[in-house]
Amino acid sequence: MHDPNRVYVFDTTLRDGEQVPGCQLTTTEKIEIARELESLGIDIIEAGFPASSPGDFQSVVEIAKAVKSPTVCALTRAHQKDIDAAVEALQYARNPRIHTGIGASDMHIKTKFNSTREEILERAVAAVKYAKKSVEDIEFYAEDAGRADIKYLAKMIEAVIAAGATVVNIPDTNGYCLPDQYGEKIKFLKENVRNIDKAIISVHCHNDLGLATANSIAGLQNGARQVEGTINGIGERAGNTSLEEVVMVLKTHAVLGLHTNINTKQFYEISRLVSSQMRMPVQPNKAIVGSNAFAHSSGIHQDGYLKNRENYEIIRPEDVGFPNASIVLTARSGRHALKFHLERLGYTLSKDELAIAYNKFLHLADNKLDINDNDLQSLMTGDLVKQ
Amino acid sequence: MHDPNRVYVFDTTLRDGEQVPGCQLTTTEKIEIARELESLGIDIIEAGFPASSPGDFQSVVEIAKAVKSPTVCALTRAHQKDIDAAVEALQYARNPRIHTGIGASDMHIKTKFNSTREEILERAVAAVKYAKKSVEDIEFYAEDAGRADIKYLAKMIEAVIAAGATVVNIPDTNGYCLPDQYGEKIKFLKENVRNIDKAIISVHCHNDLGLATANSIAGLQNGARQVEGTINGIGERAGNTSLEEVVMVLKTHAVLGLHTNINTKQFYEISRLVSSQMRMPVQPNKAIVGSNAFAHSSGIHQDGYLKNRENYEIIRPEDVGFPNASIVLTARSGRHALKFHLERLGYTLSKDELAIAYNKFLHLADNKLDINDNDLQSLMTGDLVKQ
Repeated sequence: MHDPNRVYVFDTTLRDGEQVPGCQLTTTEKIEIARELESLGIDIIEAGFPASSPGDFQSVVEIAKAVKSPTVCALTRAHQKDIDAAVEALQYARNPRIHTGIGASDMHIKTKFNSTREEILERAVAAVKYAKKSVEDIEFYAEDAGRADIKYLAKMIEAVIAAGATVVNIPDTNGYCLPDQYGEKIKFLKENVRNIDKAIISVHCHNDLGLATANSIAGLQNGARQVEGTINGIGERAGNTSLEEVVMVLKTHAVLGLHTNINTKQFYEISRLVSSQMRMPVQPNKAIVGSNAFAHSSGIHQDGYLKNRENYEIIRPEDVGFPNASIVLTARSGRHALKFHLERLGYTLSKDELAIAYNKFLHLADNKLDINDNDLQSLMTGDLVKQ
Repeated sequence: MHDPNRVYVFDTTLRDGEQVPGCQLTTTEKIEIARELESLGIDIIEAGFPASSPGDFQSVVEIAKAVKSPTVCALTRAHQKDIDAAVEALQYARNPRIHTGIGASDMHIKTKFNSTREEILERAVAAVKYAKKSVEDIEFYAEDAGRADIKYLAKMIEAVIAAGATVVNIPDTNGYCLPDQYGEKIKFLKENVRNIDKAIISVHCHNDLGLATANSIAGLQNGARQVEGTINGIGERAGNTSLEEVVMVLKTHAVLGLHTNINTKQFYEISRLVSSQMRMPVQPNKAIVGSNAFAHSSGIHQDGYLKNRENYEIIRPEDVGFPNASIVLTARSGRHALKFHLERLGYTLSKDELAIAYNKFLHLADNKLDINDNDLQSLMTGDLVKQ
């Protein structure tokens, strides 16, 4: 039975992510990440671009052998030799998919391919037909769809579905679109491509303007049912859509009525694995997986948080496998937070005692970045209570 | 003359940003950043929360003395003693603003304040009236507006504008809203608050779900004309809106018809200053200011980029002061990129020579993360050409 509200999650950490300067992985490292992606519940793993280098070819072979449930996907250009390499690399995959495509915007057609709309459309259809001879599951990408003429794009999508594409990927290759613009594109395709019910629409966004997550959600709101991205949003330039953000948006906003198969409690662990193996740091203020993502430090916030977590917490840290949420003491902390930590350490203070301790604390905190338990012990074992 | 398309940029790096664990700055450091914010063209600098600690009070005093053009703003709760401290700290500001407010969602009203909607409304109005006695420019924040009942929120906003608020800030305190939801809220206020033309609506978003930039843009599309955020998106938890992202969205999308006074060429420099002083790393794939934000590495992308920059570049790196855009060679790079770099180093190769060099290059690149100029020199000065 086909569930119309199920969103398929397509991870390209090992392809679009791995092509980032400095992020290259060994085949062994890729297999480890692929197994973790399988455990996370990823539906499709894009394992590489076999025609691009011998190492990439071999990685796709080994990943295809290593995982069971997920579809394993290989990228190609709309060239027979790329497709041949992908078919060969995918020979051990239980559920193989070929991901082929070509530029759809006039800028790409003219300045990248030195070609015409008609010729590019023919090449697109020919690539899908050629791939379909060897593999049933064919995803087509219309590169730079974010800037493509929408009527031409619709025509191209209709033609590749007729040629056998099972998934049609509408990438905002340059991270250019605004969410309402991108949502409109998906809506237009959903309403104007006659055979669109024969394929799943996929959203593939980039974060050049910081809008990748919002654009992906706008696409899903308008009928897309596959989302492409990477762990930690790694990828060329400002990166791809962060899958952990999109999945948690869907989980947090039940009103969208969409769901995935992701075990969200594994996000934190896989985020750290990818960051470490790819030598790509995650900034502390990264949504969902940053080290500060669940840390409350200001007085107003800490006070509200201690009264009711939901005042300042819309996701429970444990839902993404975060080790422990934390209240951190700084010069911005209030009496309530200080009292909380002192009580945790065994000190019960009267209101007057707390006022004295708090003044001491503020002077200390103005000269020290974070106040830890040792600092609090010193504060309390000094001559504080005598004052 | 009031320009209806001018968006005012409100920076809270030194207040909402500085309250992050580990990010605390000395007053001297804050003054340096404040001067850079002035040079960047920021309209309003939120300098601190004077009632929160003696150090913060003093910083507001010194920042107010140090800058000329920007409005200097001080945060308060809806308490007379907070407002008194803010008024005193702002005494040297050429353009002082007090930013006062209170929780507007039922969750905050009940579990944080243990109060009622009526009582909270009275406290909001009283705070604005009290602040207005000393300072003309009063911004009111309706905390957790993102989750507040919209009719109650409208009533509160109307009342505080009647009491003298010049700016009304509608924070999505918990980073909860979807862009269309947040845009709808701003639209509702614009259409239903009778005296809304007497104040500027401000958007203040958080990035818990990765939607802060999109939510801010949605607010501006629906009538807000002030945006609040920080440099690098630093801030509690997953941080605040990244001002560099919002400003570049407005600049890139002329269709929005909105403009700011920001000298975007200074973004990269101030990003590095804030990151360094606050000890808060910027991840390489951060939009606009990440070290990889303009780096192209895959063969398909490099080839297209070399044919026409705009194939893969929607913002010119120089527009945000980025030192130099880069083509990086990895195992994912194509012949075109290799040729480009070899020619840059003085090697002109025939097609056959390039084919041989490229094969050598791929084997090298499969075993080495990045290929630099020294590697290329070794590749060419070896016995390559003889093969």
